[in-house]
Amino acid sequence: MEYIDDLQLKGLKIIQSDQGFKFGMDAVLLSDFAARAGAVGGERQGYANKHICDLGTGTGIIPILLAGKTQCQHITAVEIQPQMADMASRSVELNGLQERVTILCKDLRDLKEMNQTQDIVTANPPYMKAQAGLPNANPSVDMARHEVAGGLEDFVRTAAMLLKQGGALYMVYRPDRLTDLMYLLRKNKLEPKAIRFVVSHKGKAPNVMLIKAVCGGRPGSLAIHPELVVYNADGTYTAELLDIYNKGEGETNG
Amino acid sequence: MEYIDDLQLKGLKIIQSDQGFKFGMDAVLLSDFAARAGAVGGERQGYANKHICDLGTGTGIIPILLAGKTQCQHITAVEIQPQMADMASRSVELNGLQERVTILCKDLRDLKEMNQTQDIVTANPPYMKAQAGLPNANPSVDMARHEVAGGLEDFVRTAAMLLKQGGALYMVYRPDRLTDLMYLLRKNKLEPKAIRFVVSHKGKAPNVMLIKAVCGGRPGSLAIHPELVVYNADGTYTAELLDIYNKGEGETNG
Repeated sequence: MEYIDDLQLKGLKIIQSDQGFKFGMDAVLLSDFAARAGAVGGERQGYANKHICDLGTGTGIIPILLAGKTQCQHITAVEIQPQMADMASRSVELNGLQERVTILCKDLRDLKEMNQTQDIVTANPPYMKAQAGLPNANPSVDMARHEVAGGLEDFVRTAAMLLKQGGALYMVYRPDRLTDLMYLLRKNKLEPKAIRFVVSHKGKAPNVMLIKAVCGGRPGSLAIHPELVVYNADGTYTAELLDIYNKGEGETNG
Repeated sequence: MEYIDDLQLKGLKIIQSDQGFKFGMDAVLLSDFAARAGAVGGERQGYANKHICDLGTGTGIIPILLAGKTQCQHITAVEIQPQMADMASRSVELNGLQERVTILCKDLRDLKEMNQTQDIVTANPPYMKAQAGLPNANPSVDMARHEVAGGLEDFVRTAAMLLKQGGALYMVYRPDRLTDLMYLLRKNKLEPKAIRFVVSHKGKAPNVMLIKAVCGGRPGSLAIHPELVVYNADGTYTAELLDIYNKGEGETNG
């Protein structure tokens, strides 16, 4: 069954299905990280006139949030599963964002016509190896979690192909695959420039990380930001997390 | 002028010179990280019968601390500067450790005869590029901080050559060079298995990191440990840091 969730940001809404993969905190953190980090090259140049591509968009949560949070010109969001892509398209229409957001139902390995056209690429890729763990009984959920239709290397290679020189990739991923990610980024000339680890509570090991890499960036000068803490000791959300969830952060926020 | 410092660990002492590079917190954190992480392959197998090599040993602080903290059989500590190597040798004698610690005055790129003989390699390499920043007026200090006599790649390649399969490299380094380090480790088949970032205060960005990489380790499964915090809000040392400094941690501690 499908239902509509209110995103608590400028009246934006999203359609989800209880049969499919539902968006989670990762997507919210990533869109906030990308919006706050400004545009490209480490400078807060703003999003005006910028073209964004979201790889493996699922419900379309990331393009819808970025459309709300930034002044970007256009977002192309790519999703391989026809049912998910259809639902994402309907969410775009529901929000009246058809002019700024296009959902493409395509394999991300097949975007050559968009070569070097994007200022920003975002991605929340599946983080489990195709063979790891139990496959989810629901193939739609399984594809979102496991590297069935495109592994990490496909995401990184595609981002490197899509970005203009100086453009930025923003990705949310799992810390236990940091080496894979950094190795592939460097190999594909996407230089990591910022990492932020996310921990559930102070003093815990991180279970999520946010990373920014710049296309053709000079090797080195990586900034590891202070940790983002999700919960206070008493189990309530931290002020910073509430701020990420509740505020239409970015240049358009007033 | 030379002077003798008490290391507050089983009566161990070290000779330092006010003209040369003095050991700092990095060396203490690294020897503790290596001692706590046990021996090889991620298992706490103990240090008995283990052979350790410390690359770029300087004053010899790391081998002297590891000799005190663990039951390792032998430590070879390599230092290219004759004056530093001589001072380190005298520190070894002062502590009566001649049977267990050998100081080699050699270029670390010239250790081929020790190929695949070591269970553990430790290193606190210079972290500034040869051209970066002002060179220190004192050449001994300059060599310890800048990549004058061996860059990061020399350290990683040498560690990969020295280690037996399954042996572990423990290194302390700067977070802004994380990509360089991870890329070189993976390239040299030293798989990162644990990272611990060190922050001065809670909520700050890290300025030091500790890393463990295993020779021939299976790619993936990197553990990012909870941060190590150095100072409390009131400027006193945290309990964990005091514990690292004051306790002869490891198997030999009673």
